[in-house]
Amino acid sequence: MLGSSTEYALHCLVWLVQPREQPVSSRDLAELQGISPSLVAKTFPKLQKAGIVRSMEGVAGGYRLARTPGEISVLNVADAVEGRKSVFDCKEVRRNCVLFEGEPPAWSAHGVCGIHAVMLRAEKAMRTELARTSLLDLARGVKFPPDFGDQVGEWFAGRLEGREQARMTAVKDRTRRPVPLG
Amino acid sequence: MLGSSTEYALHCLVWLVQPREQPVSSRDLAELQGISPSLVAKTFPKLQKAGIVRSMEGVAGGYRLARTPGEISVLNVADAVEGRKSVFDCKEVRRNCVLFEGEPPAWSAHGVCGIHAVMLRAEKAMRTELARTSLLDLARGVKFPPDFGDQVGEWFAGRLEGREQARMTAVKDRTRRPVPLG
Repeated sequence: MLGSSTEYALHCLVWLVQPREQPVSSRDLAELQGISPSLVAKTFPKLQKAGIVRSMEGVAGGYRLARTPGEISVLNVADAVEGRKSVFDCKEVRRNCVLFEGEPPAWSAHGVCGIHAVMLRAEKAMRTELARTSLLDLARGVKFPPDFGDQVGEWFAGRLEGREQARMTAVKDRTRRPVPLG
Repeated sequence: MLGSSTEYALHCLVWLVQPREQPVSSRDLAELQGISPSLVAKTFPKLQKAGIVRSMEGVAGGYRLARTPGEISVLNVADAVEGRKSVFDCKEVRRNCVLFEGEPPAWSAHGVCGIHAVMLRAEKAMRTELARTSLLDLARGVKFPPDFGDQVGEWFAGRLEGREQARMTAVKDRTRRPVPLG
């Protein structure tokens, strides 16, 4: 129901709550937290499709939240990542009774099966609870020393600078090459 | 979280709510409902271990509820069958931050991770809802024509009689065989 992809997505999104000068790449978010970059890279397009993040292209590209963090619930994230899975898959067992000899009467499938109904209520209770907490609530709950937030910001900036420099070096290398004679 | 085994177990248990002269075998419960007898056969020992059913040995053997059906909740059945699974498996991502260089400070894992805490609340809400409904509630919710309950009772009795007759025939066959000379 709530797998690693949702867990990782939430941990990444919490780092996007604080506004930053530059967007943050999914690879940096994964590497900061020691989690699978490929799993995170697969998850962000789903978050984007659901209107939770927006992507900025380019060398300094990356992601930002697409809405204010107080308006993005844990349920929104879980649904975006897991694709609104149901906790229970009713097989309509009640229609199978051998006494019906393959022709279930109308009354046998009238309304929602009582067992399915309990599961739907349980699922609703869980969803209601997941909807109650926003990314802002999660970010506010993360406790760290005063300078740790800045350190993370510097780490993101350093990664971006590293990429910028690598790009500049590559450009210089290309311009240094002799122009091929026509 | 709530798989076919729990679904089938609940459907079977609902048929045990009405007291019957004879216990009912798991095979008959499965065949009545057109569901996998082997899956049901694997599930009943778990229900027995959890004190939900008790088993009667012998040719006319089978299962009865071990407690009054009003005291057996859907949650009891799900826990017995699924083994009290958690909907979320927290990987303590917060301890992995690359800035800790493999040595997470004490504050990084203080208390329950906020994301884990939301999942625990969601799980609790779901469990509370599942605990609210008993087998008696489920049985009362099953609507069928007045004579259908009797037809099912007769079908169970017929199955038992069939087994009794098969056993008698086997006994007769054995006694008819000539006694081997010493």
